[in-house]
Amino acid sequence: MKLVIAVVQNKDASKLLTALIKRHLNATKLSTTGGFLRSGNTTYLIGIQDKQLPGLLKLIKRVSRSRQQSITPPVNLDGGANNTSYPVNVKVGGATVMVLPMDKFYRF
Amino acid sequence: MKLVIAVVQNKDASKLLTALIKRHLNATKLSTTGGFLRSGNTTYLIGIQDKQLPGLLKLIKRVSRSRQQSITPPVNLDGGANNTSYPVNVKVGGATVMVLPMDKFYRF
Amino acid sequence: MKLVIAVVQNKDASKLLTALIKRHLNATKLSTTGGFLRSGNTTYLIGIQDKQLPGLLKLIKRVSRSRQQSITPPVNLDGGANNTSYPVNVKVGGATVMVLPMDKFYRF
Ligand code: NI
Ligand code: NI
Ligand code: NI
Repeated sequence: MKLVIAVVQNKDASKLLTALIKRHLNATKLSTTGGFLRSGNTTYLIGIQDKQLPGLLKLIKRVSRSRQQSITPPVNLDGGANNTSYPVNVKVGGATVMVLPMDKFYRF
Repeated sequence: MKLVIAVVQNKDASKLLTALIKRHLNATKLSTTGGFLRSGNTTYLIGIQDKQLPGLLKLIKRVSRSRQQSITPPVNLDGGANNTSYPVNVKVGGATVMVLPMDKFYRF
Repeated sequence: MKLVIAVVQNKDASKLLTALIKRHLNATKLSTTGGFLRSGNTTYLIGIQDKQLPGLLKLIKRVSRSRQQSITPPVNLDGGANNTSYPVNVKVGGATVMVLPMDKFYRF
């Protein structure tokens, strides 16, 4: 058995949880940092059988890996004649994943 | 040595901590989710010797396992003549426990 | 590989993080307890190669071990003629460190 500790951005957390539930994987939300209007991380503990590891890693990577996102900043309303907003690329996402040997997993 | 990660409901957390202290077991509170008026979990990290594991598992199970609890909801004061409140069963508690091999445990 | 779980007092947390970054060590902040005006802990997950362990333990110990600190309490302004404040020793710091075998560590 393995314990997978997945630390993902809060904005990717519910997407990951939904994907885990679909695959009948047991995830325990361990902690969340950051709060209202602050970016932060969510940590999931996921107990799996060894053979489930490659699929789980692929899943976490797909849902939460670091990527560019194009956003269009709001127009500055007190600007001049040339007041146009252009899309810019920002980096979002990213995950840290630790795989540990696990002896036992219980739900009481 | 083993590291036991115990995730219990906040309402069972202080009971578990008291029981751990009585048995001279070292518990570190790792994180708590939920807050005022919201249910949530508390996570304890407990470092033990291998032979202490069966007793610890029994203890966590006794203190925090999923169970039915009979509660009597408050009477609805603006009700009619038949305004009686009956006890109902709700599910409380439940624990997730992970047992990991541990190389070393230090307190500095 | 090892996963080192270091639980330190919030007041030592940024000092530890700075020292880890200087040594190119990957630390993930897992959780923080306590808040404004409340003392609490910060938990770091640190993935390392086996040979890095002795140095890391020495570092954590140096930055965060339990120690006496001399503080001078504020003078009580409504006191009498002999109103002087003397330094007192208080215990600060302290760390709990767990070392676990780790199979894999990824950043996506
Ligand atoms: Ni199914
Ligand atoms: Ni005793
Ligand atoms: Ni360098």
